[in-house]
Amino acid sequence: MQLLIQLLYLYPTMLKQIFDQYLQDSNYSQKEPQELYEPLDYMLSLGGKRIRPLSVLIACSLFSDNIKQALPAAYAVELFHNFSLIHDDIMDNSDIRRGKPTVHKKWDENTAILSGDAMFVYAYEHLSKLPPAVLPAALMAFNEAAIGVCEGQQKDINFEKRLANSVTTEEYIDMIELKTSILIYGAMKIGALVGGASQEDAERVGLFGKNLGIAFQLQDDYLDTFGDTAKVGKRIGGDILQNKKTYLVIKALELAEEASKVELIDWLTHQVSLEQEQAKIDKVTALFHQLEIPKELQTAIKKYNDLALENLAAIELSDEKKKPLLDLLHQLMEREY
Amino acid sequence: MQLLIQLLYLYPTMLKQIFDQYLQDSNYSQKEPQELYEPLDYMLSLGGKRIRPLSVLIACSLFSDNIKQALPAAYAVELFHNFSLIHDDIMDNSDIRRGKPTVHKKWDENTAILSGDAMFVYAYEHLSKLPPAVLPAALMAFNEAAIGVCEGQQKDINFEKRLANSVTTEEYIDMIELKTSILIYGAMKIGALVGGASQEDAERVGLFGKNLGIAFQLQDDYLDTFGDTAKVGKRIGGDILQNKKTYLVIKALELAEEASKVELIDWLTHQVSLEQEQAKIDKVTALFHQLEIPKELQTAIKKYNDLALENLAAIELSDEKKKPLLDLLHQLMEREY
Repeated sequence: MQLLIQLLYLYPTMLKQIFDQYLQDSNYSQKEPQELYEPLDYMLSLGGKRIRPLSVLIACSLFSDNIKQALPAAYAVELFHNFSLIHDDIMDNSDIRRGKPTVHKKWDENTAILSGDAMFVYAYEHLSKLPPAVLPAALMAFNEAAIGVCEGQQKDINFEKRLANSVTTEEYIDMIELKTSILIYGAMKIGALVGGASQEDAERVGLFGKNLGIAFQLQDDYLDTFGDTAKVGKRIGGDILQNKKTYLVIKALELAEEASKVELIDWLTHQVSLEQEQAKIDKVTALFHQLEIPKELQTAIKKYNDLALENLAAIELSDEKKKPLLDLLHQLMEREY
Repeated sequence: MQLLIQLLYLYPTMLKQIFDQYLQDSNYSQKEPQELYEPLDYMLSLGGKRIRPLSVLIACSLFSDNIKQALPAAYAVELFHNFSLIHDDIMDNSDIRRGKPTVHKKWDENTAILSGDAMFVYAYEHLSKLPPAVLPAALMAFNEAAIGVCEGQQKDINFEKRLANSVTTEEYIDMIELKTSILIYGAMKIGALVGGASQEDAERVGLFGKNLGIAFQLQDDYLDTFGDTAKVGKRIGGDILQNKKTYLVIKALELAEEASKVELIDWLTHQVSLEQEQAKIDKVTALFHQLEIPKELQTAIKKYNDLALENLAAIELSDEKKKPLLDLLHQLMEREY
């Protein structure tokens, strides 16, 4: 068994296969009314990296050979994540998710609201299957993450209504911490608890996930503007065209002198015609380089990486046992897409 | 203490006061971002009969003198109910709730979606405060009720798209069982569990609540058409004017001969002008009387009342202990509003 777990460490794709199998077996095709349940299967079939459920399983595997006991929790976290995507897509008026129509586009808004709600209940239903001994602590971590995700989405909505130069990088980090990384915190903490970790170690594993999540999100911002199209697999500069208030923009407005600031705000408060798109991307990117934003962003990413490494060091396990978390960190940080 | 509980039995308004105090103390005015939390306090301040949280407290009081231990569960059930109202109001396009603008009218749809979601998480957060010994069973009952409410809302939406004469009374009862009474089932079962009831007794108390809930909903249908305006406090015939597919309509279409059926369908598929409203109400009500619908409906109400009494009889408590449930049943059934 121990050997198998070692192999799993080496092949995180195997963990993903175990999870995907569980996800397939838990489909809603037999449930009625089908108008309510079809969108659940549709949304879950769109795929994705499954970072959150894998975080649950990896965290569990640090403390226990019995990874399967964490599958209901992994599934609960993935359900919650997908529920929040369904509702966010309505709020953000997004038509496409992973190359397919979003639920409210394929069906309608009412279906997206209600099917999302049902998915949310099923998240708790699966979480409730955890052993009674870990249930209260796991629920508490899950609730904290779920509330954080709602607060993060509201803060994101509030940001979009504010002028970019009125938002600070601290506020931006607080927002992505809530909107994205608090669920990785919850996922890792719950996985560790299910594996039998002490409360203290579970908290450390969770904090590792939180800091890794922030670094991951900041790297997303980096790659969208400074990445390599061939590797990222989509057009570079999408955030700039969408006038998104990323870390890059906020930091640039903090550092820029008056003339550059006015120019940047002008670019980022207007839509451009199709012919002008590349010129806008080039111009804004040049401004970012001038202000040394790539270096600033790398410093910020390193800060959260280092915090994650500190959390890792504090976990009371042998270095060999901790290796999967270190591998995960390297894998996510060295990615170029 | 026992005397106090007896007094509480006699004065359910006192239970409501205890609950309302808890609700006031649990407000969200200190939480950020306030755009997310203001609608929660607004919605909860609109009042209501608080039947669901009172069901939790009454069920708990059957088995324990310590009613306060059930307050987090009572609050969780009320939060879930209000969350479902916020989202239902979007789906049903309702502008007014308890005489005030609905959340999506006072703010906007995105706010109503996201604040509803946050309210939903807080329902689980408060439920999670229950003693670990009853938590798994209470969660299971809550999840079952929550899923039922979502399925019931979807079935209601489906009904509205179907022709009235294609819906059976069995399907209608199934829909109101899910949409309304399954939450009273969950409320009573959870309250009994918190009070220390056996699984069997908790289930019986829950089933009592479920059957009472169905009878209650059918009586709502009855009073809306056959009630007394002065007592009901609103215009009689509102359901008829809104062409609602109530038990009355469905039963009438089951019983009517071809000519009456055609006439009824004609009335119920058209909106009438203001001047014709009373004529429509009078004509449809006369048709109902002709088909003896009041008697049919009273028979159906009695059926669920009797089932509730059977559930009550099976609970392993003295008659004296069961009295609050019997009082509740009489109170709800003898109401004329």
